[in-house]
Amino acid sequence: MLSGMHPMHPHDGPLTRLRRSHEQSVLELLRKYGPLSRAELGTRSGLSRTTLYDIVAGLVTSGAVVAGTPYVEARKRGRPVEKLSLNPAAGEAVGIDFARRAVHVAAVNLAHEVVGSASEGHTGELSWPERVDIAVRLLDSLTTRAPAEVEAGDGGSGRAQAVHLGALRAIGVGVVGPTTDPGSESAHAQGIDGLPDLLRKRFGVPVLLDNNTRLAALAEAVWGAAADSGDVLYLRLSHGVGGGLVVGGALHRGRYGLSGEFGHITVDPAGERCECGKTGCLETRASLDAVLRRYREAGGRADSPADFLASATAADRPALEVLARVGSEVGQVLAAVCHAVGPGVIVVGGELAQAGDALLAPVEQALRQHLMPLACHHVDVRRATLGEAGSALGGIALVLHETPLLTHYPQPVSEENA
Amino acid sequence: MLSGMHPMHPHDGPLTRLRRSHEQSVLELLRKYGPLSRAELGTRSGLSRTTLYDIVAGLVTSGAVVAGTPYVEARKRGRPVEKLSLNPAAGEAVGIDFARRAVHVAAVNLAHEVVGSASEGHTGELSWPERVDIAVRLLDSLTTRAPAEVEAGDGGSGRAQAVHLGALRAIGVGVVGPTTDPGSESAHAQGIDGLPDLLRKRFGVPVLLDNNTRLAALAEAVWGAAADSGDVLYLRLSHGVGGGLVVGGALHRGRYGLSGEFGHITVDPAGERCECGKTGCLETRASLDAVLRRYREAGGRADSPADFLASATAADRPALEVLARVGSEVGQVLAAVCHAVGPGVIVVGGELAQAGDALLAPVEQALRQHLMPLACHHVDVRRATLGEAGSALGGIALVLHETPLLTHYPQPVSEENA
Repeated sequence: MLSGMHPMHPHDGPLTRLRRSHEQSVLELLRKYGPLSRAELGTRSGLSRTTLYDIVAGLVTSGAVVAGTPYVEARKRGRPVEKLSLNPAAGEAVGIDFARRAVHVAAVNLAHEVVGSASEGHTGELSWPERVDIAVRLLDSLTTRAPAEVEAGDGGSGRAQAVHLGALRAIGVGVVGPTTDPGSESAHAQGIDGLPDLLRKRFGVPVLLDNNTRLAALAEAVWGAAADSGDVLYLRLSHGVGGGLVVGGALHRGRYGLSGEFGHITVDPAGERCECGKTGCLETRASLDAVLRRYREAGGRADSPADFLASATAADRPALEVLARVGSEVGQVLAAVCHAVGPGVIVVGGELAQAGDALLAPVEQALRQHLMPLACHHVDVRRATLGEAGSALGGIALVLHETPLLTHYPQPVSEENA
Repeated sequence: MLSGMHPMHPHDGPLTRLRRSHEQSVLELLRKYGPLSRAELGTRSGLSRTTLYDIVAGLVTSGAVVAGTPYVEARKRGRPVEKLSLNPAAGEAVGIDFARRAVHVAAVNLAHEVVGSASEGHTGELSWPERVDIAVRLLDSLTTRAPAEVEAGDGGSGRAQAVHLGALRAIGVGVVGPTTDPGSESAHAQGIDGLPDLLRKRFGVPVLLDNNTRLAALAEAVWGAAADSGDVLYLRLSHGVGGGLVVGGALHRGRYGLSGEFGHITVDPAGERCECGKTGCLETRASLDAVLRRYREAGGRADSPADFLASATAADRPALEVLARVGSEVGQVLAAVCHAVGPGVIVVGGELAQAGDALLAPVEQALRQHLMPLACHHVDVRRATLGEAGSALGGIALVLHETPLLTHYPQPVSEENA
């Protein structure tokens, strides 16, 4: 852990930061000790009466904190004491993943337990208003509250029901492709013009946006295969090959939003041309299409990635041989990244990971072969556990990280302290 | 930047964190506004009178803050108002690099300007007390204050003069090799038994320890070639090949203190055996010894790395050819790491970097060849600027990062905001 560092929103002045830090203190005390009076909060937080009343008023207005029914303490006379507590109806967060051909949503309650997730596929040709309608409908199906009417978004269906989510602070959204200014309200990715506005109108809250593969990495580190480790390398083997790094429990994004691009690490300089423009990238060898092609070249017969995975599951020999070669190349690339970054856990996800040990065993073998011996027992290879909901869950984790009122999602347990 | 995250010391309770956060607030206000009275600090910080007086008392006791001569404000009557300010004699920090065959030291003043640095070579066979004596003598030469006698350390020379450094909070120390629990007081590396105790006795302050190559990375990001960027990949080409990553202005250490091990990324699986135990590592191709060997194999004549560098400077053809091949391999490894991490700046240091463009041009060419085109204009290759003092300066940066009273070293200017 990099102790003592307090990364801040770049545009915050010291007074805004101070206010946020006071809000954090009050929320942390309510989280830890349960309902407290203003006097008790004052004593425990060290804040002056004026500051504390101001901070509490803001938290009550935002809906994060509720003032309980005043009561007179048993053994004391005098004015009733109002207790403040976290609002049980507040703090819910939702994540949405606008994948290429599907919409995935997930929601968590105040305790940051996953309430549920839902998915719906589409042709990949829907407009943004149509995709947002799907997201709203899916979220609606996850909540038990009576739906309320809201204004119709531009081009959106006025009949679609809004999700009422209490004092929802923000929505975390995953999109396809490199994202500039990721994780923020000003984030942008190619082809998403209008989407943030559409969501803001529909939900009336800030929309935080990031690359959906990277969000899946964060989700695996918070709720998934690497929930016990704050340092995770996530690799997704799907139609594309990409991933993300979680460092000390937080998403690592790189200087210009370019990181976790494991699919474009060169495996063979003399290899095939990649969609990115160069040659021999891991993606040209380990994407679903590449694996399918290699399988056919090896004499295998499969019309789709699903066919190939069925063959692998049936221990078809050419399928296993292709997976062994793919795994070996993946493992070598992972070893290079491990030397640079030193993650505690490697999580492999995406459809190809469904091949299980037929893929992961050769990955691990090559990894250990190319890792310096000193590092060999310091990394664990695991299969992703969150499935297609991963990126939507990552959107939630993004909200819990980035909005000042909701930073305290359950901390991953440190392996050393476990 | 990962906003809203507040990584903390793992063993801190919420109350310790709260106290540190209050200390930070008070120091930040004094830094920003200059001398302030307790009343002014109370208004600006939002802390209660009791809390503020307590925090200020602690800061005065530690020497970080001084209470100025009380004075009566011009237009007001009544009691004199005592102003508090940062202690100009406090906050100095020193860094020491115990390299294999030299001791390097550096010191900064309260404004975090480098006061000076000094180095002394040795045979590599000195005991720790002897090396500490060298460090003390070098530090003494950097300070203008009258030296004072201190107790002799175990086995140390009682005649060595102590450095008086005001309210010095900690010493940052670089050592050779992988370090467990890096950056902390409990850090350890092989072969350094007794060193932290020796330094603690000699200076009477906490000793923070980390790998010296990684500290050089931090220093280049704070004061050196990449002072304008918070995201840096530092590669050192010396007798060994290693490096470090700086992420968002802070040193990235990896889950088990293993990161920045660029020298052990496989370049050629069928290559030579490396000291680490596996084969074909970058270190077997790009260390000073490896380059010297390759030069001789190419018909060059050189008795030492210095001879080789002289030949390269004289544009000796075999020397340039070797550097071109080395640079190409280095560039390919750097491209792999860039895809994973997305640094804004790559800094190349170590003796081999003295070859200048003869090395850096092929490095950059190979880097761009193996980077996805989208990422090509997002990384800058630069030669390190801090020289042999780099790791000692990194020790200072470590202290400024890690000790709660001294976190505010000058922030790297964001390229986007510049």
